[in-house]
Amino acid sequence: MYRLFDYLPSANGYKVRLVLRHLGLPYDLVEKDIKKGETRTPEFLAVNPNGRIPVLEIPGKGYLAESHAIISYLAEGSNLIPAERFDRALMWQWLCFEQYNLEPNIGTVRFWVNSLKKTEAELGEKLIEKRKNGYAALDVLENGLRSNSYLVGDRYSLADISLYAYTHVAPEGGFDLGKHSNIRAWCKRIAQQPKWAPITSR
Amino acid sequence: MYRLFDYLPSANGYKVRLVLRHLGLPYDLVEKDIKKGETRTPEFLAVNPNGRIPVLEIPGKGYLAESHAIISYLAEGSNLIPAERFDRALMWQWLCFEQYNLEPNIGTVRFWVNSLKKTEAELGEKLIEKRKNGYAALDVLENGLRSNSYLVGDRYSLADISLYAYTHVAPEGGFDLGKHSNIRAWCKRIAQQPKWAPITSR
Repeated sequence: MYRLFDYLPSANGYKVRLVLRHLGLPYDLVEKDIKKGETRTPEFLAVNPNGRIPVLEIPGKGYLAESHAIISYLAEGSNLIPAERFDRALMWQWLCFEQYNLEPNIGTVRFWVNSLKKTEAELGEKLIEKRKNGYAALDVLENGLRSNSYLVGDRYSLADISLYAYTHVAPEGGFDLGKHSNIRAWCKRIAQQPKWAPITSR
Repeated sequence: MYRLFDYLPSANGYKVRLVLRHLGLPYDLVEKDIKKGETRTPEFLAVNPNGRIPVLEIPGKGYLAESHAIISYLAEGSNLIPAERFDRALMWQWLCFEQYNLEPNIGTVRFWVNSLKKTEAELGEKLIEKRKNGYAALDVLENGLRSNSYLVGDRYSLADISLYAYTHVAPEGGFDLGKHSNIRAWCKRIAQQPKWAPITSR
């Protein structure tokens, strides 16, 4: 059985849990509290030298880190990955955009504000820059949803799961989605998928 | 024929050019100077709403952004992508690590220092943080090369091309690779691959 090292409030971990649920794959959950440094112990660094969750232990194979590497491994051959080559590349385009432009801004601000309870005064310039870049990423996502219900090939795929994870909790980091009506409608659509569950579900 | 929108000093673009060369795929190059804002014009934003190079125009399909989406599209079915499922996932693990941990630190510092000619005094705290995170990424890469010649399955793959791109020019951003002997040997190994060319080659 798969074993998932994870921290339930993590939206990177949530991507993996949504895919495991969607595909009906059973797994054991091993919780690691990133706020207590539990991913930086010598034991955990032997599992992932990069010291981060999520990590999936795959029986007979080994450990796999990075949310997008994990979900693409799990979903291979399923309807969560587009069958057509260019659509599959567009799926990866969205996944790469998420890790470079969306998560480091929206996810990091949410962690600072919601988990670490840092104030605007404490964060200063760093917060202003991440807010600006976070809204720029939301605008790109809003544009990507202007004429279709899902991000790639108008079918629910890993692209939707990945981008949804941090976007739907952006308000926890103080991001206002009021002007992003395509994003709000798409978030509702995803929450209606079979086997969907809220972020901190096991 | 493929058309590549690119900026020659970009190591993200270099990944794509190395893969095109390795696979012997002809392409037209359209240079966009990111220092002059040429990727933020209305015309270019219609090509990539995220306003970044590289972008590959694929005849009959459309535009594809994000270096890793492009190289995985181009290399599909070739020997640059491991045939085994878990190895393929490990390749993506390295690609994701590169975009999240290596490029935003080593690539950004190189751009600030080498292209924009910013000084340490001007950059202040931002530089110190990126240097720390950049060296942490280099340590993870050094560890990944401790017992093998290439990153995945001991064969040259997209993982090597991707991680090499910014790592081999890290000294241009002031990073000292003196303590990273595995990385230095691996960089030499990659420069000996057939059809390798320096970063600003067309």
